[in-house]
Amino acid sequence: MSLPRRLVAEGLGTAFLLAVVIGSGIMGERLASGNIAIALLANSLATGGGLVVLILIFGPVSGAHFNPAVTLAAATQGVLPWREVLPYIAIQVLGAFAGVAAAHGMFGEPLFVASLKVRTSGAQWWSEFVATFGLLMVIWGCVRQQITAVPYAVAAYITAAYWFTASTSFANPAVTIARAASNTFAGIRPDDVAAFVVAQLLGAAAATLLFRWLLPHRRDP
Amino acid sequence: MSLPRRLVAEGLGTAFLLAVVIGSGIMGERLASGNIAIALLANSLATGGGLVVLILIFGPVSGAHFNPAVTLAAATQGVLPWREVLPYIAIQVLGAFAGVAAAHGMFGEPLFVASLKVRTSGAQWWSEFVATFGLLMVIWGCVRQQITAVPYAVAAYITAAYWFTASTSFANPAVTIARAASNTFAGIRPDDVAAFVVAQLLGAAAATLLFRWLLPHRRDP
Amino acid sequence: MSLPRRLVAEGLGTAFLLAVVIGSGIMGERLASGNIAIALLANSLATGGGLVVLILIFGPVSGAHFNPAVTLAAATQGVLPWREVLPYIAIQVLGAFAGVAAAHGMFGEPLFVASLKVRTSGAQWWSEFVATFGLLMVIWGCVRQQITAVPYAVAAYITAAYWFTASTSFANPAVTIARAASNTFAGIRPDDVAAFVVAQLLGAAAATLLFRWLLPHRRDP
Amino acid sequence: MSLPRRLVAEGLGTAFLLAVVIGSGIMGERLASGNIAIALLANSLATGGGLVVLILIFGPVSGAHFNPAVTLAAATQGVLPWREVLPYIAIQVLGAFAGVAAAHGMFGEPLFVASLKVRTSGAQWWSEFVATFGLLMVIWGCVRQQITAVPYAVAAYITAAYWFTASTSFANPAVTIARAASNTFAGIRPDDVAAFVVAQLLGAAAATLLFRWLLPHRRDP
Repeated sequence: MSLPRRLVAEGLGTAFLLAVVIGSGIMGERLASGNIAIALLANSLATGGGLVVLILIFGPVSGAHFNPAVTLAAATQGVLPWREVLPYIAIQVLGAFAGVAAAHGMFGEPLFVASLKVRTSGAQWWSEFVATFGLLMVIWGCVRQQITAVPYAVAAYITAAYWFTASTSFANPAVTIARAASNTFAGIRPDDVAAFVVAQLLGAAAATLLFRWLLPHRRDP
Repeated sequence: MSLPRRLVAEGLGTAFLLAVVIGSGIMGERLASGNIAIALLANSLATGGGLVVLILIFGPVSGAHFNPAVTLAAATQGVLPWREVLPYIAIQVLGAFAGVAAAHGMFGEPLFVASLKVRTSGAQWWSEFVATFGLLMVIWGCVRQQITAVPYAVAAYITAAYWFTASTSFANPAVTIARAASNTFAGIRPDDVAAFVVAQLLGAAAATLLFRWLLPHRRDP
Repeated sequence: MSLPRRLVAEGLGTAFLLAVVIGSGIMGERLASGNIAIALLANSLATGGGLVVLILIFGPVSGAHFNPAVTLAAATQGVLPWREVLPYIAIQVLGAFAGVAAAHGMFGEPLFVASLKVRTSGAQWWSEFVATFGLLMVIWGCVRQQITAVPYAVAAYITAAYWFTASTSFANPAVTIARAASNTFAGIRPDDVAAFVVAQLLGAAAATLLFRWLLPHRRDP
Repeated sequence: MSLPRRLVAEGLGTAFLLAVVIGSGIMGERLASGNIAIALLANSLATGGGLVVLILIFGPVSGAHFNPAVTLAAATQGVLPWREVLPYIAIQVLGAFAGVAAAHGMFGEPLFVASLKVRTSGAQWWSEFVATFGLLMVIWGCVRQQITAVPYAVAAYITAAYWFTASTSFANPAVTIARAASNTFAGIRPDDVAAFVVAQLLGAAAATLLFRWLLPHRRDP
């Protein structure tokens, strides 16, 4: 595929991903009458459903990274040329903000609002490390062994990870930055973004190194 | 397949789809003790389960459109002859009303009742544009790349879309018209139908044009 | 496979099916603090999960009918010898009662208790007709077109059918009879069983006739 | 695969499994405002999602047992050399404790706390027998007939088994021992562990013997 097509795929996919995450968070919180567990159940199942679909559609086009941590990991393993890393990340971040605005528009909110939701602590950072370690474990494990399972595996993993990590698993720097622009259920205070991103990159690096040893042969993500 | 068989498939499939949407909406609302999030969770999961099955069964027979927006999009891309568009849409609408009556019969409601549920606003129309854009994105993306995933992808998408759009994603003119005849959880006021249908057709057109550029080769939906 | 192996498969599979239906109904009701929608959500998702597994395991052995209506439909289409119908149905009913007892044992209830749960009305019978029509539609539709999808399709259908029918879709005479011996969430008053079974057999017959015309070629269920 | 790689796979997989079980239990209980059914819904769906992924990734590496009962059953059927049984079980138990600590760290709890949750009674032991019988039934049934379905089948089974057994289906000695070190939703009092393990091993043995007769040919789990 030509680079412009792949960038449109990354941008559109990341935008839809954010629209799903933010939109279902708002809907869940509005309807759940204060029972946050039900809101998170809706939020996590909707995100899983959205991810299956977006990876099925855009996987064969651009690899369906939607995530700078995945793009960087792919580059370190030689499956994405380094010169495409910056365009990929730029369009992912742009798409993520577009998705936030699209979701806010659907629910009658202002397009961007800085989040007030505090998400900071060692437990949260450890959660993001584990969450992103697990995401890259899923990606390298399936890409190198059963590539057709990737859409279902990533979706199942993220749905579970909303629940088993204390941070609800952002696990994605582009998603984290854009969620800072949403003062809703899925938001994060801008001040807390940087530490999340650092923890995510460390988790991605650790899983990539481990799986390079565990499953030494390579295929394209 | 002969046209009569395909029309029976479209009619029966659309009828079951509406029976699932309306029936599970009634059941959810009756049992949820006022917690609408739980009702929508049941409604969205049941609709997803129903869609998987209906597309698996009727996909190989008629294409399993169940949706005039899909039928029109297929015709514009040359995968359905234009002369079959009208019979397809007619039987879809007929089936949709039959499904509403079937659901009402199961729950002891009058067969048809005009809905009083107001669904109107720019946010709602934008939701329907996004919802139908996404549906056609799923269909063209999977049909042209991994056609066996279509039943699962459409179901996962719609389950998610109940949550990430403010309108709960009608995304289907035949479904929208028939839901106006149900004054239950899934209903829509007859006055609000036309604007929904316009937004849906615009969303379908936009996705069809974009994917004609993004994935230029064609296969039959 | 030899007949004894197939009968063990039908009996064990039906027993597990009932253990799942009754057991998850009890668990759901006990934990849900009176919110019946949450109990039914657990009950329907557990039943779906159980069905996938049981059909995957026993489908290649015995056909995984677990249901006299399916066994009879298979015989009318020549895919099961008539002389095996009675043994199949006998072991299904026996297995169903064993499953009820197993579930009651797990939850510290007496092994069999006649249900007091009233389930009678035209709306309930129409629900059972629709539910069993749909089940046979799924079976014939998938068996004749994409047989590997059967376990997932039947499970998705039944999970949805718990919600879109007013009777929560028994759709199975052996299951119906055995559920009369459980005075729990999933029970049915013995007096109400016969009408359910009649509606189920009519629904199964209607779908079998329709799909004989719609998809005229045959394969073994 | 070399034994060190396989042991890392078993250890890491079991650690993630425990992190999912314990973590999602804590998250569910914290958010569910006292409605335990919603907590268990989250716990069971997250565990199912986690299992799909872990078996997809580690199945081709180590067999993805994560469970001494499975390892022993595999050895009795000649699909794992007896000399590897002890290393497998040791790393599973070690991994399980590491997973508990990882989850506690994510939620700001002390790394290990002896559970006070009483889980003892004939009904509970019968539940564990049934749960583990069913798990081995799923494994032998799928491994010998449709091995690619194993990840989905095991996940669907366990999600259902959380609901249809009174013990919420531990079905795994390593998991049981490690859950004794967590005084949270998923914990079990250390005093109650031994009887659970005995019931699990009996259930695994019964299913293994039955399926040796029912499906006499062998393939590697």
